[in-house]
Amino acid sequence: MEQEISGGYLWSPKVENSGARSQFYENMRLASPRDHVLSYAKGVIAFVGTVTEFAFSAAKPTEFANVGKQWAKEGWLLPVLWQRLSTPVRPKSVIAQLREHLPERYSPIQAKTGKGNQKAYLAAIDEAIYNIVLVQGYGSYLQDGVSLSSSRIGTDIREELDAQEERRIVLDPALSMTEKQQLVTSRRGQGEFRRNLCMIERGCRITGVQNQALLVASHIKPWRSCASSHERLDGHNGFLMTPHVDRLFDRGFIAFQDDGQILLSPRVSVHDIRSLGLFKALARNVGPFAQQQMQYVAYHRTEVFMSAVA
Amino acid sequence: MEQEISGGYLWSPKVENSGARSQFYENMRLASPRDHVLSYAKGVIAFVGTVTEFAFSAAKPTEFANVGKQWAKEGWLLPVLWQRLSTPVRPKSVIAQLREHLPERYSPIQAKTGKGNQKAYLAAIDEAIYNIVLVQGYGSYLQDGVSLSSSRIGTDIREELDAQEERRIVLDPALSMTEKQQLVTSRRGQGEFRRNLCMIERGCRITGVQNQALLVASHIKPWRSCASSHERLDGHNGFLMTPHVDRLFDRGFIAFQDDGQILLSPRVSVHDIRSLGLFKALARNVGPFAQQQMQYVAYHRTEVFMSAVA
Repeated sequence: MEQEISGGYLWSPKVENSGARSQFYENMRLASPRDHVLSYAKGVIAFVGTVTEFAFSAAKPTEFANVGKQWAKEGWLLPVLWQRLSTPVRPKSVIAQLREHLPERYSPIQAKTGKGNQKAYLAAIDEAIYNIVLVQGYGSYLQDGVSLSSSRIGTDIREELDAQEERRIVLDPALSMTEKQQLVTSRRGQGEFRRNLCMIERGCRITGVQNQALLVASHIKPWRSCASSHERLDGHNGFLMTPHVDRLFDRGFIAFQDDGQILLSPRVSVHDIRSLGLFKALARNVGPFAQQQMQYVAYHRTEVFMSAVA
Repeated sequence: MEQEISGGYLWSPKVENSGARSQFYENMRLASPRDHVLSYAKGVIAFVGTVTEFAFSAAKPTEFANVGKQWAKEGWLLPVLWQRLSTPVRPKSVIAQLREHLPERYSPIQAKTGKGNQKAYLAAIDEAIYNIVLVQGYGSYLQDGVSLSSSRIGTDIREELDAQEERRIVLDPALSMTEKQQLVTSRRGQGEFRRNLCMIERGCRITGVQNQALLVASHIKPWRSCASSHERLDGHNGFLMTPHVDRLFDRGFIAFQDDGQILLSPRVSVHDIRSLGLFKALARNVGPFAQQQMQYVAYHRTEVFMSAVA
């Protein structure tokens, strides 16, 4: 989709409308930084891309407008750096070369005809296919793959998404100046949101730190995913966290069970947890939670947490 | 100064122009959150305030314009929540009451006459003086002190200062759109600055973490204190740090010797360092530094680090 190309990402729902699991959507979470991806639409591959970051949970980008109206709001966003091929490649014309490298299951194109597979979204392909497309699309002088253009590395797409949302808030005629101010400052865990949170929480539930200078006011349901102004300012939608715990929580590397047990994602290594000095702390029970915190904790666990891919 | 009142702070140089130490400036660093302060100017106390945060190193606010032209650029900024007294209090008129509570050394007003002491900037006073002023300024119905208005708690004045500087950059006609973009994104440790930094540093020198998702691109000389665009984008003016180390470094709770030894500020407790899981890590030597990093490391150590008050 052109929105995904210009935005520098791929976005998919997490499951099919029926609620059924889809391998093509699960593949979003399997893609790793530096993986190569091909973009196929209307019979041609016009763009190749490089994954810059693991996928994370994000609302359907507003650029989609009416595309996929039936999809759930929250899906996987996979940051990809796209480059246009100098010559678009038509798989149908090179199907003889591609055929032997196509996977038996979940193939993006049909091995017989070279036509696209309707249900495919993100499919795993052999490096050989990527190389064939690259040679066709760029000419034979370029066989080492596309190097990651420097313009995108080091830019966090979450910042861009948040900044977009901030612009929408600032331009929203339905909000008063005070509300705009409160919502914008709540993005950084400041102002009204932090004050509300500090009336409920005293310190970091994982490390026990209570020194305000060392604490971040972290949203449980992420600021960018909040459905209303109320959720963004709700003191129950937050925890005070030391900055390293905040990072793990924000990225979905840890989550909390309703009973206060901490879940650790396979996305982060035990070695890193040790280096962060959190090995013992993660064995703690961080409960109990207030009734009003529970819905946010559950949202974070099901939507943001990077659990093992089944 | 009215700029300080409306801005919600006190600002002083760190030392006198001669380079000599000043107790009145040192007091900036001794003030603690919830301390009460009185603002005396032109013979009257018109405002009382409550310290909201410890002082930190910051450039002379631009609102000062030509005030204190001779002062060094970098000084102490003490966040204070000011409230106007309903009746300004003239110390001269109540000197008989105040006299016995005035300190012998470094008094803000002269015990004999009640006139202001020219050299005084921030002076330590007895709670009794504060109470006398409060009764005079608000009337006797209010003797319990001024409660901290809720509007300011939870707002980080650093964010406000940075946002001001960002607006100056965006409006600067001497900068191209690309430069503006680079400078603004570098504030969050993103974009060009992070790319430059990643060519020099591999991971967190304190924890050893190399997982990019767990690292912050942290300026050594703070973004808001940088003297030029070059300093803001210079890869040598940064370290990759895990978020809790970044917070300690940014607040001046730790600093580095030229030989790579880590200095710990008395502003943070060993108990907190243990809770952060950094007790062992802080014993590491984080050197050596590249020649071009040294000037920034030295700036951070002398200007940002919160060393013990002599």
